Amino acid sequence: MTPSFGNIYCHRLSHINVDECGAPEFYTGGAKLVNLNGIDGKITAEELNNSIGGKGIVHHTQPSSVSITQLSETGEAYNLDEIKNISEVAHKHKLNIHMDGARFANALVSLNCSPAEMTWKSGIDVLSFGATKNGCLAAEAIIFFKPELVGNLPFLMKRAGHLLSKMSFVSAQLDAYISNDVWIKNAKHANAMGKKLSQGLEKHKNIKIAYPTDANEVFVKIPKDIIDQLNSEGYTINDDEWDGNAVRLVTAWNTDPTDIDTFLNYIKS
Amino acid sequence: MTPSFGNIYCHRLSHINVDECGAPEFYTGGAKLVNLNGIDGKITAEELNNSIGGKGIVHHTQPSSVSITQLSETGEAYNLDEIKNISEVAHKHKLNIHMDGARFANALVSLNCSPAEMTWKSGIDVLSFGATKNGCLAAEAIIFFKPELVGNLPFLMKRAGHLLSKMSFVSAQLDAYISNDVWIKNAKHANAMGKKLSQGLEKHKNIKIAYPTDANEVFVKIPKDIIDQLNSEGYTINDDEWDGNAVRLVTAWNTDPTDIDTFLNYIKS
Amino acid sequence: MTPSFGNIYCHRLSHINVDECGAPEFYTGGAKLVNLNGIDGKITAEELNNSIGGKGIVHHTQPSSVSITQLSETGEAYNLDEIKNISEVAHKHKLNIHMDGARFANALVSLNCSPAEMTWKSGIDVLSFGATKNGCLAAEAIIFFKPELVGNLPFLMKRAGHLLSKMSFVSAQLDAYISNDVWIKNAKHANAMGKKLSQGLEKHKNIKIAYPTDANEVFVKIPKDIIDQLNSEGYTINDDEWDGNAVRLVTAWNTDPTDIDTFLNYIKS
Amino acid sequence: MTPSFGNIYCHRLSHINVDECGAPEFYTGGAKLVNLNGIDGKITAEELNNSIGGKGIVHHTQPSSVSITQLSETGEAYNLDEIKNISEVAHKHKLNIHMDGARFANALVSLNCSPAEMTWKSGIDVLSFGATKNGCLAAEAIIFFKPELVGNLPFLMKRAGHLLSKMSFVSAQLDAYISNDVWIKNAKHANAMGKKLSQGLEKHKNIKIAYPTDANEVFVKIPKDIIDQLNSEGYTINDDEWDGNAVRLVTAWNTDPTDIDTFLNYIKS
Repeated sequence: MTPSFGNIYCHRLSHINVDECGAPEFYTGGAKLVNLNGIDGKITAEELNNSIGGKGIVHHTQPSSVSITQLSETGEAYNLDEIKNISEVAHKHKLNIHMDGARFANALVSLNCSPAEMTWKSGIDVLSFGATKNGCLAAEAIIFFKPELVGNLPFLMKRAGHLLSKMSFVSAQLDAYISNDVWIKNAKHANAMGKKLSQGLEKHKNIKIAYPTDANEVFVKIPKDIIDQLNSEGYTINDDEWDGNAVRLVTAWNTDPTDIDTFLNYIKS
Repeated sequence: MTPSFGNIYCHRLSHINVDECGAPEFYTGGAKLVNLNGIDGKITAEELNNSIGGKGIVHHTQPSSVSITQLSETGEAYNLDEIKNISEVAHKHKLNIHMDGARFANALVSLNCSPAEMTWKSGIDVLSFGATKNGCLAAEAIIFFKPELVGNLPFLMKRAGHLLSKMSFVSAQLDAYISNDVWIKNAKHANAMGKKLSQGLEKHKNIKIAYPTDANEVFVKIPKDIIDQLNSEGYTINDDEWDGNAVRLVTAWNTDPTDIDTFLNYIKS
Repeated sequence: MTPSFGNIYCHRLSHINVDECGAPEFYTGGAKLVNLNGIDGKITAEELNNSIGGKGIVHHTQPSSVSITQLSETGEAYNLDEIKNISEVAHKHKLNIHMDGARFANALVSLNCSPAEMTWKSGIDVLSFGATKNGCLAAEAIIFFKPELVGNLPFLMKRAGHLLSKMSFVSAQLDAYISNDVWIKNAKHANAMGKKLSQGLEKHKNIKIAYPTDANEVFVKIPKDIIDQLNSEGYTINDDEWDGNAVRLVTAWNTDPTDIDTFLNYIKS
Repeated sequence: MTPSFGNIYCHRLSHINVDECGAPEFYTGGAKLVNLNGIDGKITAEELNNSIGGKGIVHHTQPSSVSITQLSETGEAYNLDEIKNISEVAHKHKLNIHMDGARFANALVSLNCSPAEMTWKSGIDVLSFGATKNGCLAAEAIIFFKPELVGNLPFLMKRAGHLLSKMSFVSAQLDAYISNDVWIKNAKHANAMGKKLSQGLEKHKNIKIAYPTDANEVFVKIPKDIIDQLNSEGYTINDDEWDGNAVRLVTAWNTDPTDIDTFLNYIKS
């Protein structure tokens, strides 16, 4: 979707921009990630529209694709209208739009809609369908809603060492994952635990929820002394995380609610 | 100087960032250009210092080098203290610092110092020594002040098609260029013409000089009706240039002062 | 070990040359695989020595590394003297030497020596330690015998998408694999089955063993009518495999000896 | 024409294979140059046809393009039938065919045909039109006979630093070069000088012409004592050149026939 001389428009905090050690640049052969500020962790259709330029001019890298993260980097879910508006801007400029769905199931449960509604019906062209954060191990899939975008991907995968010997044993997880609503049940549990944790924390007068808790990620501003206390109790809290001003807490498909109670009790005391 | 997973810190308006169609990304194998806002077209030591982070963490691209443009993108020259302060920050973080000297001679004449003072004595490690903008054709040189940085450059040049057959005929220009102060004389003339043009324009009540005219580039905000008039007189003024709010006028080693008078007369009338 | 302008010396039939869709070229940024003819599937120290040239001349890609496959591409194991002789030539020319050990355990059992003897004690600098072909799933390790060669590998791995989320669940297999001699037992069984198969086949007057069966790979020249018959019995024999003139049969850690008897009976009848 | 996972079929002695420090690998992002032995310095349609395989199989790099050099690496010109036969094989397999025309004019004069006949009328899809070896400096052109192959070349050129500032001053040479048959006159002279040199050398009983002298390159096997004598007379003869068993002598557009006489006299004496 993005040639070596292309621009990928994404949020400045996006995982592809800050947490992949430059993987998109590597795999495109040197494309440029154009950073958008967005609102909290979500880009806006308007800023995207204003950022696209230079098309056809040989001196400039060329607008090529847009990537949004669902759940976004601040734990918020793009709603369907937001996705549609961003897709419309992308398509108006002939760009393709990718959804980084590392936490796809958690966002889906949060929006209470169908996978189709959250993706191709809202204009998404390609989805990274993450399963690892929701119960699988080392299993992800790329789903193309525009088959013509597949192109030479099989050759590129193979030559990158991503066609593994005995890979069917890894892929088999995805069969189980999407059968019998396992993935939905897992995400529902994780999100419920996120809500429980968020609601417990917001009662504390010195703690401030940094962004709305839409799913299973809770971003909170916690005073240094409480962080120190928690670390001394055996927790490992990295206060240097993310956007520099909030701590990220993540609940999972297998989070035990009593562990949340214990955590909240430590803070209260 | 910059590995494929490295960060190059540069001004957001810098030529390497916006006008090379991604050449630094191409030649590094996908490094990331970290955009600094700076003040006007110059980066500041402080913003640079605050931007460097993530060292040693495998998830993040790694701080590797700094690039400044002398003349900067807004026609201003970094003074020696500014260069020294930026170099100090770079070296404190173990980064190498590159000077993009496409208009090196014009900056040098503007500062009225020696080439050594403007480069290695102020901490610069590598210089792109441009000659094309000051009278040569297709001739540039890379000058390493730290010989250990040369590394495999000869092989990389050859394999990129930048070791030309009969290249000595091109390189020979540089001999003439730096002999008998040809380069200094050329730049002095261009800068004098820049000053003449700038001073003529600032007298016009509807025209505003956008940035200080330190050398041979004059950035001016010109009302649309004057631009239209000039274009109808046979000039070609691109009002979509650069930072989006100023027109760039450039004088050269061979600019005829009467052409400036003619231009200024058109505007007055 | 190999810069973008480097030469990797390897057998013309080697997996890295013909079966990785150009992965070594991709990850080096465009190095050249110099094909050696060798004897059967093994390169020789002499041919390697004669092939290395052009050092320091900017027009030529530069000798950088050697890669041998143990088991080799024809199922033969390099003996310790062969490995030592090749390593000596590599080191004499300042090249590093890599062992592709996709079937490391099978070769080890075949030579009846220690892992150290087959690697660093014979001059090997880096080993790809394969486990997938001997009972693991999607698990491999890179082992550096010269720690200074590790270099920036962690960053390169991350940026290539080879640092997986939840990767410890994959890596854990290697703990079990090398505990209690599991890997040796698996390889011994596979090799025993290879020997049984090879000995059964060589009794057949129209079948010719193409290369010595040193471990668990049997290369045989089988007449077309026997291949057709086997395929009609439910086997899937690809007669277009490998070097174009032999069929490759592979036994595994879990091969049932009765399956070999059944197979041999089909051929006899 | 060649994706990163593509095969480029070329002669093992071809300049793109041995004298560009891996430039084709660099610019394709890691394609593979498949070496053909050919007859002397020319590939044959038959060997090409036999070498193409693996299409569509994800494990193998994919047949993509063919490159021939006209003049070939041994100074011989492909005749029109040879070019047509090779093009036909290329096109039968859906490959594009490139002609490396560093010495295009010399070959053209040798064949005494039109540029169209030697290129697109014989099936050539893309031509590197060299001018530097025939009187220009640093000037070459890429000529596409299939416009749809141009693709993103302007962006790739720019980002590789091959769109030079003031490049029109370089390109202007080509206007003069192809006007008034300058290029043909230059090549005719160079070829005539080549013939004179070749005919003079073949009279010497201890010297053997290695390949037919079709144009301005003469390959000769010269005994070591004659080489030593010539070098002591002030010539610089590199006896380690090319295919390892012949010395290459090249005449040019400006070769003075008396210099050839002088050279031949030294040998006779």
